[in-house]
Amino acid sequence: MSQAIVHPLSVDASWRSRAKRVIPNGMYGHQNAASLPEGFPQFMERGEGCRIWDVDGNEYIDFMCSYGPVVLGHKHEAVEAAARAQSELADCQNGPSHLIVELSELLVKTVKHADWAMFQKNGTDATTACVTIARATTKKRKVLVAKGAYHGAAPWCTPNPNGVLDEDRAHLDYFIFNEIESVRQAVERNSGDLAAIVISPFRHDARFDQEIVDVEFAKYLRKVCDDIGAALILDDVRCGFRLALGGSWEPIGVEPDLSAWSKAIANGYSIACVLGNDKFRDGASQIFVTGSFWFSAVSMAACIATIESLKNEDGVSKLIRAGTRLREGLAAQAQSHGLSINQTGPAQMTLVTFAQDKDFAMANLWTGEAAKRGVYLHPWHNMFTCSAHTDADIDQALLAIDEAFSIVRSKFGAN
Amino acid sequence: MSQAIVHPLSVDASWRSRAKRVIPNGMYGHQNAASLPEGFPQFMERGEGCRIWDVDGNEYIDFMCSYGPVVLGHKHEAVEAAARAQSELADCQNGPSHLIVELSELLVKTVKHADWAMFQKNGTDATTACVTIARATTKKRKVLVAKGAYHGAAPWCTPNPNGVLDEDRAHLDYFIFNEIESVRQAVERNSGDLAAIVISPFRHDARFDQEIVDVEFAKYLRKVCDDIGAALILDDVRCGFRLALGGSWEPIGVEPDLSAWSKAIANGYSIACVLGNDKFRDGASQIFVTGSFWFSAVSMAACIATIESLKNEDGVSKLIRAGTRLREGLAAQAQSHGLSINQTGPAQMTLVTFAQDKDFAMANLWTGEAAKRGVYLHPWHNMFTCSAHTDADIDQALLAIDEAFSIVRSKFGAN
Repeated sequence: MSQAIVHPLSVDASWRSRAKRVIPNGMYGHQNAASLPEGFPQFMERGEGCRIWDVDGNEYIDFMCSYGPVVLGHKHEAVEAAARAQSELADCQNGPSHLIVELSELLVKTVKHADWAMFQKNGTDATTACVTIARATTKKRKVLVAKGAYHGAAPWCTPNPNGVLDEDRAHLDYFIFNEIESVRQAVERNSGDLAAIVISPFRHDARFDQEIVDVEFAKYLRKVCDDIGAALILDDVRCGFRLALGGSWEPIGVEPDLSAWSKAIANGYSIACVLGNDKFRDGASQIFVTGSFWFSAVSMAACIATIESLKNEDGVSKLIRAGTRLREGLAAQAQSHGLSINQTGPAQMTLVTFAQDKDFAMANLWTGEAAKRGVYLHPWHNMFTCSAHTDADIDQALLAIDEAFSIVRSKFGAN
Repeated sequence: MSQAIVHPLSVDASWRSRAKRVIPNGMYGHQNAASLPEGFPQFMERGEGCRIWDVDGNEYIDFMCSYGPVVLGHKHEAVEAAARAQSELADCQNGPSHLIVELSELLVKTVKHADWAMFQKNGTDATTACVTIARATTKKRKVLVAKGAYHGAAPWCTPNPNGVLDEDRAHLDYFIFNEIESVRQAVERNSGDLAAIVISPFRHDARFDQEIVDVEFAKYLRKVCDDIGAALILDDVRCGFRLALGGSWEPIGVEPDLSAWSKAIANGYSIACVLGNDKFRDGASQIFVTGSFWFSAVSMAACIATIESLKNEDGVSKLIRAGTRLREGLAAQAQSHGLSINQTGPAQMTLVTFAQDKDFAMANLWTGEAAKRGVYLHPWHNMFTCSAHTDADIDQALLAIDEAFSIVRSKFGAN
């Protein structure tokens, strides 16, 4: 693991400077490294297992996994082989390959609430289609979402309102995650016109400590939707196949009507998916959604191989094991340095924050120093483990992270 | 070229029947073969050059080119090699590869009006981002679109209103393609609040004869937008790189402020793009749009190789040559059978309709019979040539098509 060299003469800096001329702001969206502290690269070169390399040749142990898509490790053999074999035949054609049927059957078999499937490209396509299907089915307009939750980057849901109109969100209303009373009030406010409630499996809003869902809260949402005939939509885009193969709420026994999937389901190949039950099949048949590449076969081959590999390898257990080892290591290290940190959410999708950390100054220093030492963490977004993280990888990462904690302690003192 | 066998015991029929159980309606979107006549397969197996094979092993000469994405022919060597080389390194990572900069630079060099680029996955992502950028820049709300034009499948633009709310289209207003007076009135109706005019390079609404843009009309749109500071948005998703490498309106000398691209730009790899000029760079920097796979490197490598191949091979000329040969052949055949057809739009994106053809009955029979004879046409959507169509391919296709004309004449008589 080389020590990262990040200075104005780096290859990364040179690409950043060229990017500024031909890309607004030099970069956009969630992969804009301008929002990351010094020490993080903008441009990446390659990946293998849980290791990644930037354009300067610096190696990192990766705890972002491409912001979620990589769940089995980069360039997983079975997934790559399936994708390669399909790409020898065709990808984007005049019609889907038969794999769309095999994949739908596999998902319906794997995910408990699902009777049918439809595929898209972006997580936003999937959440938007869920809302549209709910409205087409119920003939109602109102959609309840948790305040601060991220459900995509279309005008109705993007967190940044520039260029967005009031009308794009006219029929959204808000509740507080895990607060039953706030849902009750929102339902009452929109009585007679409620199409859906959209919820993520746990609260994973960027920049806030994460919150596991209360089972009673989840059951209440299910009951409300049943009582009034609204759709319970689970936004499983970020969590899907990381918490449970049967859907992220399978372990708590609460079944959504519709669920939105993307990110990890094809280990980095571009695909998204809506799964639904038979109550919402007719509504799903009535809407028109499509995209030039929604039927492309290579990502579907990769998706099938990813699901089978996760089953064969008991992938979710590996994610949990790696995440737990990381979390326990971080907790012990922080304590030994007299630093107070919060680790929230499931171990395989942990968010680490420092107590009293105004503007994430401590988190920025910590993750920036870790990056310089070959560990790719994130200062304010939940991180991700993959099934390629071995105990040895975690231990090696922790060695570097310990130095980063030490620097934080020197600069900020105990918090 | 084998004679297609389409009967209830076909492999295609068996997949269709399985699909009905796990996909709403058995299929969705623009690739739903339920809207195509008997003779067309739903499920495709592979492609090579201008030839494609369905799941029953039937071979076709392809005039749909995956509904537009395939411009150099299926499995074009240089594009496949570039994609394969990049996929050996990485696709979806924690940040883009440096290819995003090289591709942006190449597009800015190739497309006359462009000073910058942003990439997405769906054509709809690109058109939606254009509208959002226009609104962010101008701080106005109203967007004018041509009545009946297709700009994607998001709630604000999908042609099917099920599940869509009035508010999704609250600030759209409509004009008639090529009718200056209708634009003048729409501008007047929305005076003081106009953010953008969205237009396709020519009128290519499905099920209607196509219409080339009047140069005076295009110039009028440019002038109106200049006068009031609105964005002229060219939706080049379907036409991009098929009419001209510098943008579809480069030959008529009218530059849009923003243009939306997808389909053919990476010869079938999934990518979309917004190009813009410096007037709209700030607005583009202010919005938040993103997607899990928007920074994936393989499609960018394919896009670069596609642009270079189109330049090296003089691809657009080949598309025109193939389209013109097809068109001339069809015209002569129709005449010889005493059938009256309209062939509209540019030769490389021709739409063929039969005169007096109620409910497309003649077109359905004609294309269905052509499909059974190994030629994949379309009854009501514009078709596409690719640079892999040789004179011999066109001539072979015409042999089969002539039989299809003959059957139409027998059944319907002269029209």
